[in-house]
Amino acid sequence: MNGADATLKTLADCGVEACFANPGTSEMQMVSAFDREPRVRPVLCLFEGVATGAADGYARMAGKPAATLLHLGAGLSNGGANLHNARRAYSPVVNIVGDHAIDHQKHDAPLQSDIESLARPHSTWVKSAKTADDACHLAAEAVAASCGPPGGVATLILPADCAWSETKENHKDVALPLHRYAIPAPARQVEAAAKAVRAARKPVLFLGGLACSERALVAAGRLAARGVRVMTDTFVARLPRGAGRFAPDRMAYFGEHALADLAGCDLMLLAGTKTPVAFFAYPAMPSVFVPKGCEVQTLSALHEDAADALEALAEALGASGPPPLQSYQMPDKPRGELTPYAVADSVARWLPEGAVVCDDAVTSGLPIFMQTRSAKPHDWLMLTGGAIGAGMPMAVGAAAARPGAKVLSLNGDGAGAYTLQALWTMAREGLNVATVVFANHAYRILEMELARTSPGGRTTGGEAGPAAARLLDLGDPRLDWVALSQGFGVPAVCAVTAEEFDAALARALAGSGPSFIEAAMG
Amino acid sequence: MNGADATLKTLADCGVEACFANPGTSEMQMVSAFDREPRVRPVLCLFEGVATGAADGYARMAGKPAATLLHLGAGLSNGGANLHNARRAYSPVVNIVGDHAIDHQKHDAPLQSDIESLARPHSTWVKSAKTADDACHLAAEAVAASCGPPGGVATLILPADCAWSETKENHKDVALPLHRYAIPAPARQVEAAAKAVRAARKPVLFLGGLACSERALVAAGRLAARGVRVMTDTFVARLPRGAGRFAPDRMAYFGEHALADLAGCDLMLLAGTKTPVAFFAYPAMPSVFVPKGCEVQTLSALHEDAADALEALAEALGASGPPPLQSYQMPDKPRGELTPYAVADSVARWLPEGAVVCDDAVTSGLPIFMQTRSAKPHDWLMLTGGAIGAGMPMAVGAAAARPGAKVLSLNGDGAGAYTLQALWTMAREGLNVATVVFANHAYRILEMELARTSPGGRTTGGEAGPAAARLLDLGDPRLDWVALSQGFGVPAVCAVTAEEFDAALARALAGSGPSFIEAAMG
Repeated sequence: MNGADATLKTLADCGVEACFANPGTSEMQMVSAFDREPRVRPVLCLFEGVATGAADGYARMAGKPAATLLHLGAGLSNGGANLHNARRAYSPVVNIVGDHAIDHQKHDAPLQSDIESLARPHSTWVKSAKTADDACHLAAEAVAASCGPPGGVATLILPADCAWSETKENHKDVALPLHRYAIPAPARQVEAAAKAVRAARKPVLFLGGLACSERALVAAGRLAARGVRVMTDTFVARLPRGAGRFAPDRMAYFGEHALADLAGCDLMLLAGTKTPVAFFAYPAMPSVFVPKGCEVQTLSALHEDAADALEALAEALGASGPPPLQSYQMPDKPRGELTPYAVADSVARWLPEGAVVCDDAVTSGLPIFMQTRSAKPHDWLMLTGGAIGAGMPMAVGAAAARPGAKVLSLNGDGAGAYTLQALWTMAREGLNVATVVFANHAYRILEMELARTSPGGRTTGGEAGPAAARLLDLGDPRLDWVALSQGFGVPAVCAVTAEEFDAALARALAGSGPSFIEAAMG
Repeated sequence: MNGADATLKTLADCGVEACFANPGTSEMQMVSAFDREPRVRPVLCLFEGVATGAADGYARMAGKPAATLLHLGAGLSNGGANLHNARRAYSPVVNIVGDHAIDHQKHDAPLQSDIESLARPHSTWVKSAKTADDACHLAAEAVAASCGPPGGVATLILPADCAWSETKENHKDVALPLHRYAIPAPARQVEAAAKAVRAARKPVLFLGGLACSERALVAAGRLAARGVRVMTDTFVARLPRGAGRFAPDRMAYFGEHALADLAGCDLMLLAGTKTPVAFFAYPAMPSVFVPKGCEVQTLSALHEDAADALEALAEALGASGPPPLQSYQMPDKPRGELTPYAVADSVARWLPEGAVVCDDAVTSGLPIFMQTRSAKPHDWLMLTGGAIGAGMPMAVGAAAARPGAKVLSLNGDGAGAYTLQALWTMAREGLNVATVVFANHAYRILEMELARTSPGGRTTGGEAGPAAARLLDLGDPRLDWVALSQGFGVPAVCAVTAEEFDAALARALAGSGPSFIEAAMG
């Protein structure tokens, strides 16, 4: 077999079952290899940002790596923003990036670029094959590197000659983790945490995405019943929630709100995350969300097993009481104006059990998140890296990982315009995704952010004049989202009232295959 | 004023008149600054790849830098592929990339990444401001760096605090080139070239994009009249052509064709380019397009003035005869099936004088290029870096640089799906762009490339089985390009026959403002 066959076979042997692809000439051997390796499902995407976002969504739901197939440095660049989000989600993703044949590289052909430099910022592991014999060993190494701990993006650069040359190698000698994993937290961290909680007046347990498994949340809930306040990062990779589950609080986005919320806390325990910091800095505002006098201690670091550590802590504190669990509540049918709150009611009403929500809804997202606390049990995937344009691509991957589940993709209209090509892959693969775009015709979050550039009017800026206002406006012309969705092959409707949206969402979440709703917000 | 104001004022003082922007929170001070600096026109793009491709197209037509405004590493990544194309076009582009405030960077906030590493592969100059006082000096340095020689991408990273803090600095002391420039080629290169041409049996002059100015082409035409064969790179940044101009040959894309075409050549003179190499390597095929025994000499290097050198060479060789010029020919109205050749006839018929063609048409492009040799005088912009998805963004920039001209954007359907958000900016700004997408429902070039993976069936691959074929197919479902274009606000029609296309193109090129034609190719 050739190097491409050996690489793909290795990925399959390592448990990789999906490859989100946008290949070019230098990847043709890999494309051909799919004909001889049925264990890996190739999923064509019209743009690399769709492929990488899909791999992230897949990894979050499957807990194991998906592959991407990308075309040299240019293709990797196009996928870079969603790889950044994957990095911040600690998602295991294996990029296979084609490159020029090694002998050809010295000629600086038009598509030549420094792929390693482009990959390094979002990859925990980057290597380039030197021969066809290398390729499968490196592929196995890439899968292992992506699995962690704590998990991340591994980028294997595969020069064309390493793909087309014959090889007899296989990866058999490489020891393989097939899923994301963690190592045990040292016992002394748990003991120190227990001691600190006993001494604290107002302790808070702060969970990152790596401490949001179902098991970890049960343990965190027991600690909540023992009087420890539990909250998560503002954005976590995946949060199991809804009826029958413990609902931690969520850190506020803006620093002044977060610090007000944490006022009086004297202990912050970290599990699967780092000290909370502001998404952005502002003049004369704090960067770190820790109140004065509050001690910060790590219960489990990023690479450590948070569920084990939380259970051990609950045990040490005698927190054996049942965690406070959400009970199911179906809101009344919303009526009148279509606001984020009305949308939230509808989502809470119709979200089916086992659904996956991919949230790139920016300013429209928070009310929906709050209101769905008591919906049927579901998973919520968030914008971990802050690079908008993840909502539809993640939904592609989540639906590929969970064919039986209904996926709901929530998007701001600014965010949705980034990688809307994902709709085509939903149509092509018949994925069970209901996509919603909140058409408020503005970068609404930026209107808020511009106002914050001059707190109290103390410095230049703070108010949008005509030029600035136009840079935050999406209303001239208005995007016709129904036409866009239909253009990519996904049936679509526009909902103008709360009643229309409620009916449209009920239909979308009851049916199978992809659907689209433009939520006309004003 | 604050650092953002000083930066924007400096860009304006340096002659920058357009900024293609997709800003986020860390760029809000720059957004606000546009209210106080009317000399720079901000153009909002829905996706960063549109902004960078537009800056490239602008620079190619204006010969001076455009700016972009991008949001941290994620935004720069999204714009990376078209920055790669700009780099290969030697286009002066100045990226202003926002970053976290310097004090905030140590906290590794979600959007933090290594922007320099992401910028380096496509940038000739990358620096990050350290204070507000730095910012304007670095902005002037960035403009200068972008201007060359030979010109390229300069990336200024602007941390938020450097934008929001007050400064009294200005850039006055920096000496500024305001346009792309070159330095004279040494006289000895011209003398050596003249000597070599006199001794050669079959000389060829090979022009890169930097030797394709109108003046350089007149001199090259004089050399052609003296018996020197003149050809250009397969892809050049901008080629002035059509009636009244000299039409050089064009290097073939595939090596076997290129070498057959060059058979017997004993001298290759390089002007504004490097030794020609294959776009991709293939098993047992040559990487370099120089026949055996052919000497290669540089007349003018990338940073040297090709027009001057070509005129001096013509002078030295006594090549004073008039260059062979194209005369205007209007083809007959095409009839019947809509093929690339029928499209070519229509383009040659209706392209108005002074038009700009942005060619990302992949397999449909070559016949149109060939047939428009004798059309009215126009400029042809090509895919210099091979990163598809440049055709619509470049058209945005070209139209912004040349408000009086008609721009024709030609796109394959695979290529067009990359950055179709450019259509929205065309609608918003009322740009005179006629966009055509050739809907053949396949990555046609890749079907050819897959066949080439196994020359003569000697190695694995070469024939697409079901999985591979599906990865090259765009027909399930078919994109409805008319709906997509209308969704972004650009009126659109679908042409199924040659007659329909001819009529639609005539209307599109006669009117003003944006329009769109889906060319249904099968």
